[in-house]
Amino acid sequence: MEGQLDNLELELQVGVAKVRKYATSESGDTLELIERPLGGLSLVLADGQRSGRAAKLISNLVARKAISLLAEGVRDGAAARAAHDCLRAHRQGQVSAELHIVSLDLVSRTVVVSRNSHCPVLVFVDGALRVLDQVSQPIGLYAGTKPIISEFPVAANTWVVAYTDGVLEAGARFGASFDIAGLTTSFISDEQGSAPQLADAILARAVALDQKRPQDDMSVLVLALLPNQQVDQARRLVVRFPLPPL
Amino acid sequence: MEGQLDNLELELQVGVAKVRKYATSESGDTLELIERPLGGLSLVLADGQRSGRAAKLISNLVARKAISLLAEGVRDGAAARAAHDCLRAHRQGQVSAELHIVSLDLVSRTVVVSRNSHCPVLVFVDGALRVLDQVSQPIGLYAGTKPIISEFPVAANTWVVAYTDGVLEAGARFGASFDIAGLTTSFISDEQGSAPQLADAILARAVALDQKRPQDDMSVLVLALLPNQQVDQARRLVVRFPLPPL
Repeated sequence: MEGQLDNLELELQVGVAKVRKYATSESGDTLELIERPLGGLSLVLADGQRSGRAAKLISNLVARKAISLLAEGVRDGAAARAAHDCLRAHRQGQVSAELHIVSLDLVSRTVVVSRNSHCPVLVFVDGALRVLDQVSQPIGLYAGTKPIISEFPVAANTWVVAYTDGVLEAGARFGASFDIAGLTTSFISDEQGSAPQLADAILARAVALDQKRPQDDMSVLVLALLPNQQVDQARRLVVRFPLPPL
Repeated sequence: MEGQLDNLELELQVGVAKVRKYATSESGDTLELIERPLGGLSLVLADGQRSGRAAKLISNLVARKAISLLAEGVRDGAAARAAHDCLRAHRQGQVSAELHIVSLDLVSRTVVVSRNSHCPVLVFVDGALRVLDQVSQPIGLYAGTKPIISEFPVAANTWVVAYTDGVLEAGARFGASFDIAGLTTSFISDEQGSAPQLADAILARAVALDQKRPQDDMSVLVLALLPNQQVDQARRLVVRFPLPPL
């Protein structure tokens, strides 16, 4: 049985869903994706301090720096440190951002999670939940900030769920709280669907808890390694978003 | 009626589907995506000369250079020129690549197509086909190479279809040819589905024409601007691919 599982062909699924804070023109969260030159991919999720245009400029700067280094083969921890140094140098330590890097590294055959955020990351391996919530600093403020890094071997039925604080605190203004781990555990144990469907389900619940007016930018990132059920060997990428009106 | 169409809320849809050449370990095509700092997104599709690892190193270098500049707000034509200069300097003009950049630019409210490829790009605006097939040079070989750039205003029912030469030449080894424009025209006029579904349909037909053993790396990129039918304002990203076995 063990041997069978090891030989299973696996599929990577990534789903990201984002909305901006209610009544703002753009999200201050930035999500970027890059192929790792030695195999695999990295997802960078940055949440700039405050919201709107100011936050977007910050999260864009941070994500861009991390992505450009990861594209050159720089390791995740060094890319996170560089994004920190870059933001701190540009803004003299006055502005912060939260940063997640989630990578599938096909050289080490691991999933690597780097956190500079007060938001936990949820990891499910074969139904067992592990909450990555060690205290970590945001980037941009203090000398020597580094990420908290966790690594998991590539294995079937591994799920990683990361999100920004608009999701974490959904409902708080209305006296409710969001049991993200509970929703995720049910979704996975009931085999309700794919990584994109889980990202959508978490985002929809967060928006509902904020009574359809998100009180902050909200982003959800789900990465899953599942037994391959695709009929072909293709790699696929899909993007959808509504255009802002003129 | 005109006014109604102008006020329609639009949705961006992007679909990319790729397979590698039969019996190679990895595709020599690279597709990367980046958010434009002033609004919109850019897709970079690079096809490195030859196939396998050597081609991948080239297309990765080229795509990385273009993406990192686009992420900083550099215009598409300058990013393509820089990718060319960079490849030519690194490989002394001995190695070529083909390069497409397809952007949705929300500042100019246009779709921008930059070609350094012998593969045409198909553009459909409200059912009318335009084939972008002006002669353009690959990058990396000659001094002063520049892209052929075409620009289209953001408008409902605009489709852009780009692909690498493995798709263009699908079936050639078996005496068949692929009428990509015909398939695409039918798909769009029969309202058969979304941008990702069109990308999948083109790739599936190309693979079938090569008798399920792709004779070259194949990549298809479809970008569409359609009346928005999403129930929410979320931005979504999906990635799926099978992992290489151990």
